[in-house]
Amino acid sequence: MSKRLEGKRALITQCGAYMGPKSVEMFREEGAEVIAEPAVITSAEQAREIVAAAGEVDILIANFAADASSGTAVHQIDDSTWREKFAVMVDPLHWMVQAVTPQMTARKKGKIVVFGSATPLRGMRHVAAYSAARGAQVGYVRAVGAELAAHNINVNLIAQNFIESEDYYPKSVTETDRFQAYLRQNIPARRLGRAEEDVALAIFLAGDESDFFCGQIIPFAGGWAT
Amino acid sequence: MSKRLEGKRALITQCGAYMGPKSVEMFREEGAEVIAEPAVITSAEQAREIVAAAGEVDILIANFAADASSGTAVHQIDDSTWREKFAVMVDPLHWMVQAVTPQMTARKKGKIVVFGSATPLRGMRHVAAYSAARGAQVGYVRAVGAELAAHNINVNLIAQNFIESEDYYPKSVTETDRFQAYLRQNIPARRLGRAEEDVALAIFLAGDESDFFCGQIIPFAGGWAT
Amino acid sequence: MSKRLEGKRALITQCGAYMGPKSVEMFREEGAEVIAEPAVITSAEQAREIVAAAGEVDILIANFAADASSGTAVHQIDDSTWREKFAVMVDPLHWMVQAVTPQMTARKKGKIVVFGSATPLRGMRHVAAYSAARGAQVGYVRAVGAELAAHNINVNLIAQNFIESEDYYPKSVTETDRFQAYLRQNIPARRLGRAEEDVALAIFLAGDESDFFCGQIIPFAGGWAT
Amino acid sequence: MSKRLEGKRALITQCGAYMGPKSVEMFREEGAEVIAEPAVITSAEQAREIVAAAGEVDILIANFAADASSGTAVHQIDDSTWREKFAVMVDPLHWMVQAVTPQMTARKKGKIVVFGSATPLRGMRHVAAYSAARGAQVGYVRAVGAELAAHNINVNLIAQNFIESEDYYPKSVTETDRFQAYLRQNIPARRLGRAEEDVALAIFLAGDESDFFCGQIIPFAGGWAT
Repeated sequence: MSKRLEGKRALITQCGAYMGPKSVEMFREEGAEVIAEPAVITSAEQAREIVAAAGEVDILIANFAADASSGTAVHQIDDSTWREKFAVMVDPLHWMVQAVTPQMTARKKGKIVVFGSATPLRGMRHVAAYSAARGAQVGYVRAVGAELAAHNINVNLIAQNFIESEDYYPKSVTETDRFQAYLRQNIPARRLGRAEEDVALAIFLAGDESDFFCGQIIPFAGGWAT
Repeated sequence: MSKRLEGKRALITQCGAYMGPKSVEMFREEGAEVIAEPAVITSAEQAREIVAAAGEVDILIANFAADASSGTAVHQIDDSTWREKFAVMVDPLHWMVQAVTPQMTARKKGKIVVFGSATPLRGMRHVAAYSAARGAQVGYVRAVGAELAAHNINVNLIAQNFIESEDYYPKSVTETDRFQAYLRQNIPARRLGRAEEDVALAIFLAGDESDFFCGQIIPFAGGWAT
Repeated sequence: MSKRLEGKRALITQCGAYMGPKSVEMFREEGAEVIAEPAVITSAEQAREIVAAAGEVDILIANFAADASSGTAVHQIDDSTWREKFAVMVDPLHWMVQAVTPQMTARKKGKIVVFGSATPLRGMRHVAAYSAARGAQVGYVRAVGAELAAHNINVNLIAQNFIESEDYYPKSVTETDRFQAYLRQNIPARRLGRAEEDVALAIFLAGDESDFFCGQIIPFAGGWAT
Repeated sequence: MSKRLEGKRALITQCGAYMGPKSVEMFREEGAEVIAEPAVITSAEQAREIVAAAGEVDILIANFAADASSGTAVHQIDDSTWREKFAVMVDPLHWMVQAVTPQMTARKKGKIVVFGSATPLRGMRHVAAYSAARGAQVGYVRAVGAELAAHNINVNLIAQNFIESEDYYPKSVTETDRFQAYLRQNIPARRLGRAEEDVALAIFLAGDESDFFCGQIIPFAGGWAT
């Protein structure tokens, strides 16, 4: 392994959840100076404070953990669940982008990588609220990616699905014959992706090699979305 | 013109705005009994009341007018503008779907057509909040469309752009040489779409001919998105 | 049913195969004067002769039957099978477009609808040659659709899959429990599409209501692709 | 720079053209043992001979130069130009995949990266034959990628556009004010991509970090396609 992020300062949000722990570990291995932010972000002001405390941020890893509640039919989604999906995944993305872009614009350089989802790219049942919030991330990144490219800031989204995670895919589920059969029939890769594969893509998108990626939604789901 | 919607009851939301007026007119011409709902919908309860008052609803036309504010750089979007986009376009879509699907599920038949946007399908500058909210609609329709298909309810979204509208494309803009040059260079059709073309697609998606469309996002933008 | 194609002359290729018979029947019901061409088209010259004999052609329905051979692993595809897929589906599409566009360009009006496939939009196993040829149709229609829109000619493709057809889905297969289970698990609509639904979409795309569709690839697969 | 391809043998086709020279150089820098194949491949037999001579091939870089003839209206494409596009870009891709997969299947490991195009993903004028052939590559990679994933072979395509190249974008064109204005208006990145950025993506897709990519079409066009 090289040191592909030597000299870069990377701010990783919700560092204890979702892709946070593996990102902190691997970004450090690649030479980045990692600012690991544990907070759940609930306001624009908090986002600004986090960025102010972080100092120079070359790379923002927008990582937001969502309750992976599936199995809810659309008519059973109550209003608080509905709003919470946007509060947890969409609002903090926007606030962090707003907080971090002024300094990136001033330096004419920056990288923003969003750990998003492939769910809104292909229909799935019983994930309406989740898919709507993830779809908002997609629409946001397409627009902001086109806009900030003019300032040499690259904003891209990893549209992942079927990545190993005790939250989304607990072992009690994945080790069943039924789940294994599901993988074989529905995922060309026939397995879950590993967190380190996911973060490797994030490292690629955070490094200087990917300066020509602007506002892209990159499916990362073992061929489930392509 | 035929009477393709004879005997159908169609509820059209925000009937006085966006694609509402033309939809009311053309759905009636096609034989539908139109319930033209003028309200801006701001709560789940209100949505339930509207549907209760409407009685049987065979077709829901989910039409939500948004302030077509563009030209706002992402760092200038204030929190109230940000929230308002979701409040105006995303929440009422969900509430209306929740309100109308129980009766459609009971009858094992229903049509929901959303007037959405192609914006989240292709990056545009200075429309971050709008694109995020429209992207939420896309993710929502993909999920709900897959889910409700099992009950023979078709949910689809018209991903429109460059449709004639005094709100989005005022004549003071469209009649300039600059705008006409823009159309020639960027839109294969070299013109704006007409409201009646847009509603004709909605009628197709609302009628019995399109029962095999489930959770689709149909670009309608003169070839700008395909 | 209305007469939506009154006064239009529609040339339907390979009228005896694939979507041909149902197209001939339903286009006539909609008032079109149908020129039903039975030939398999094997040269540009033949295409020109067919169009010359047809006279004025307002609508070209590009319908090309392919041997629905699936189940062939990529290393087992012999060269003649490989070439035949392009010879049968791609070359005649191009020749017919070349033959028919001069008169459409002169009249500044025309409609070309291709019965294509959703296969190249989503990966499937053991259909490499078929998917490549169908993908060529997709790339062709996107380019030609953008180009000919400037002459007010609309070129669009129906990216279908899971449509009833004795060739693609023989009853001996579709009536098995296994196939029915496959449909329930993989196709949101939980059934095959009917030929008349498919042709209804072609009629929509062939009529005046869809003038704003340019170079579009429209998935038509019960929600399998969206 | 690390040695990310240490111990890998990479066969690069048409090594003197298109992305060949930069690929040979950078794959070597990453530690790969490069078999640089200069030939234009015109038969399945030739492909088999090339692979037999190459010995073990861990990575196939499917690089095929096409005459970048644009500016041809669809009705002016003669039959030999039409066929040549498929002969140059599509047939050799298939033959090389056929030639190389038996050994990859036997080892249960392999990487195939195709330098393709974003053209078939978005309509462009006057590139009908080129877009059709590039679209065939897309359909082929989606199918073969899904199929070969079961053998742990990753097949992916870089859908590039606007990459620096004396063939596609001669300096006599790119240095004009008109072209620079075109870039600013149409490409979010506001510049051409560099060959080394393109090959960096190929290296990522050829290395062990990207084992979860199966049959993907990855736009690489400065945000022009996303």
